[in-house]
Amino acid sequence: MTAPLTFDIDHACQSTHARAGRITTLHGSFETPVFMPVATAAAMKGVSVEQIESTSSRMILNNAYHLMLRPTAERIAQFGGSHEFMRWPHSMLTDSGGFQAWSMSDIVTLTEEGVRFRSFIDGSSIMLTPERSIEVQNLIGADIIMAFDDCPPSVSKTSESDVDEEGGATSSDEGGSTRPSKKATLSPEAHARRLIEAVERTARWLERCKAAHQRPTEQSLFGIVQGGTDLALRARSAALTTAIDLPGYAIGGVAVGEGTDDIRRVVEFTAPLLPRDRPRYLMGVGYERDIVAAVRAGVDMFDCVLPTRNGRKGYAFTRSGPVRLRNACHTLEKAPLDPSCDCLCCAGGYSRGYLRHLFMAGESLGGTLVSVHNIRHFQRLMVDIRVAIREDAWSTFEGQWPVLQAV
Amino acid sequence: MTAPLTFDIDHACQSTHARAGRITTLHGSFETPVFMPVATAAAMKGVSVEQIESTSSRMILNNAYHLMLRPTAERIAQFGGSHEFMRWPHSMLTDSGGFQAWSMSDIVTLTEEGVRFRSFIDGSSIMLTPERSIEVQNLIGADIIMAFDDCPPSVSKTSESDVDEEGGATSSDEGGSTRPSKKATLSPEAHARRLIEAVERTARWLERCKAAHQRPTEQSLFGIVQGGTDLALRARSAALTTAIDLPGYAIGGVAVGEGTDDIRRVVEFTAPLLPRDRPRYLMGVGYERDIVAAVRAGVDMFDCVLPTRNGRKGYAFTRSGPVRLRNACHTLEKAPLDPSCDCLCCAGGYSRGYLRHLFMAGESLGGTLVSVHNIRHFQRLMVDIRVAIREDAWSTFEGQWPVLQAV
Repeated sequence: MTAPLTFDIDHACQSTHARAGRITTLHGSFETPVFMPVATAAAMKGVSVEQIESTSSRMILNNAYHLMLRPTAERIAQFGGSHEFMRWPHSMLTDSGGFQAWSMSDIVTLTEEGVRFRSFIDGSSIMLTPERSIEVQNLIGADIIMAFDDCPPSVSKTSESDVDEEGGATSSDEGGSTRPSKKATLSPEAHARRLIEAVERTARWLERCKAAHQRPTEQSLFGIVQGGTDLALRARSAALTTAIDLPGYAIGGVAVGEGTDDIRRVVEFTAPLLPRDRPRYLMGVGYERDIVAAVRAGVDMFDCVLPTRNGRKGYAFTRSGPVRLRNACHTLEKAPLDPSCDCLCCAGGYSRGYLRHLFMAGESLGGTLVSVHNIRHFQRLMVDIRVAIREDAWSTFEGQWPVLQAV
Repeated sequence: MTAPLTFDIDHACQSTHARAGRITTLHGSFETPVFMPVATAAAMKGVSVEQIESTSSRMILNNAYHLMLRPTAERIAQFGGSHEFMRWPHSMLTDSGGFQAWSMSDIVTLTEEGVRFRSFIDGSSIMLTPERSIEVQNLIGADIIMAFDDCPPSVSKTSESDVDEEGGATSSDEGGSTRPSKKATLSPEAHARRLIEAVERTARWLERCKAAHQRPTEQSLFGIVQGGTDLALRARSAALTTAIDLPGYAIGGVAVGEGTDDIRRVVEFTAPLLPRDRPRYLMGVGYERDIVAAVRAGVDMFDCVLPTRNGRKGYAFTRSGPVRLRNACHTLEKAPLDPSCDCLCCAGGYSRGYLRHLFMAGESLGGTLVSVHNIRHFQRLMVDIRVAIREDAWSTFEGQWPVLQAV
């Protein structure tokens, strides 16, 4: 039996827990730490496959939740899986649908069996269990599939969390949707009990996920550590999760409404509890500073909808901080978003003034160009992070990325 | 003084009035007969410059009407003109804004001086005169600019004409917007008087346009023949227009609500009245059959919003006729739109089933892929037309394009 995923660490940082290496799947290999942009419904919003490739991204996400509802996982399987369906020849990961079932659905019933929710498309009642989530992900066919976990919202920041049509959450409201959370806020005591329950149930469900996995020679199942911001619970969850031998492990439940400090505290505590020789994936994070802190804590994989979601709204990421292209100050600006950037948008010579015009005129090309730039921005961050690890040159790195100093 | 446009006819069809040749501008050359896709607001809706280039298009349109209102022609000039603004290195044409001022504005007052209308953006009152239209087009800087003409709607079909946000009209409601015409229908007698007035005024305005043109060594001004479906008036307009020496001439007012038969009758009558040694441009046309008929009548240049406007709505053009991708019959279809097509979408292996999924899921990538296919469809039509002219092989050509036989 050939392992469908290999993870080779070729350099461990001298001064931090960071490591640089390479993950190889049946669809190719890519360097780590890696940033994975999100193609929610087997399409990256407004961005073509060629444009994704132009950012040097070689690993992307699909959302099992969206695809199981439309066009359905069974239909994607009839097309030979999502790689073939969306014509993406490189590596791919699917999430389990658990997070979106909780965050994007109107009615959710949680039992030991699974989660029952209403389809956001036609209101029909859908039961998602560990077995069904894995079946769905086996049908979609991504290289890495995620355990179906119990992912409760964080206690204090629930109402600030937001989830949009890409199914991703972020830890800030910057550029985010205004869709309010529909979850009732629990009392601190009830939330603590809920977190304990989630940790224990996530572990029980992980056993069921592993048992249900029908394509272990093609797809690699990752487990997910829960526990909210309670470090003792994180330790308990890490122990339960890593007790099950899997090709990789993720830290979940940290981009559901916390601030940067909480994310950092949880990640710095949890990452070292995961096996050194397996990829560590921090789900749904995030901003540049969050990614850098997590890399230094030993995390290898990241995904986030920020580049595309913000890009569509005219928010561009740059090394010196965000640029809001609708602002009138850009009207006559001939400079590109970032003169040092090699993306299609910047190297193509598109001026900030032209980009502003596209957003003011409602031309979707604006969202496309800025999304491509934003994805490339995060890929360049990862390139520089990998150099910093290999050369133990963090202070040089931070000088190149002033945005990391922003409060 | 270097001529900013050369037109070389290298083959005249043996059996029709068609000719094959080449137009060269200061931004490159392209073969004729040519199809020019439309980038209304200095952006092709949902299609990047690289994607336009992938269709082999080397000549596109901008709409002066849209650009003069937003971001304004003066601002585009500050960026070095539209070529530089939108990063389009090849040839470009702007229309004069007259047609859109009539068709897209709520209040229009026509005087000998010009047209007064309300901006569709902020309701402000705008006066567009021949001098101002040419000034706007000089500022935008396209290789070919169009005379500001008096372009009345056709008498009987006005309410079926439609104009959308791309500012283009088509002679059919297929895939078109539902925006109703706001023009009052004139009596046949009043319409006839109106057409005569338009022909005479268009000629007077053409003199003013030529006199106002400030960049004749860089931009080529084309005159426009009006006259509706009245052939005597067409003859009068052609005589008045061609009496003024210009690098090219257009047939206007034929895509404003007529049927295919009227378009063909007018074009077959009018095209031979235009100088043989100058490019002949049929504005706003159209479907494949209309283009082929006009080529056979001696027309060299075409533009239309159909490829992009229909593409965004999930209507694809194929050699055997239109395909409506939202139809359920495509759900499991693994074949591409057209197995013989070499566009990014078809040659890229995107299935009809995937394209349908994109439209059902509201993913703008669907509009992008089908727009690119549709543009390439028209460019392949032009390639085959040029072969048919050079080889006098029209029956072979028609066998390759079954859609031409459709009623």
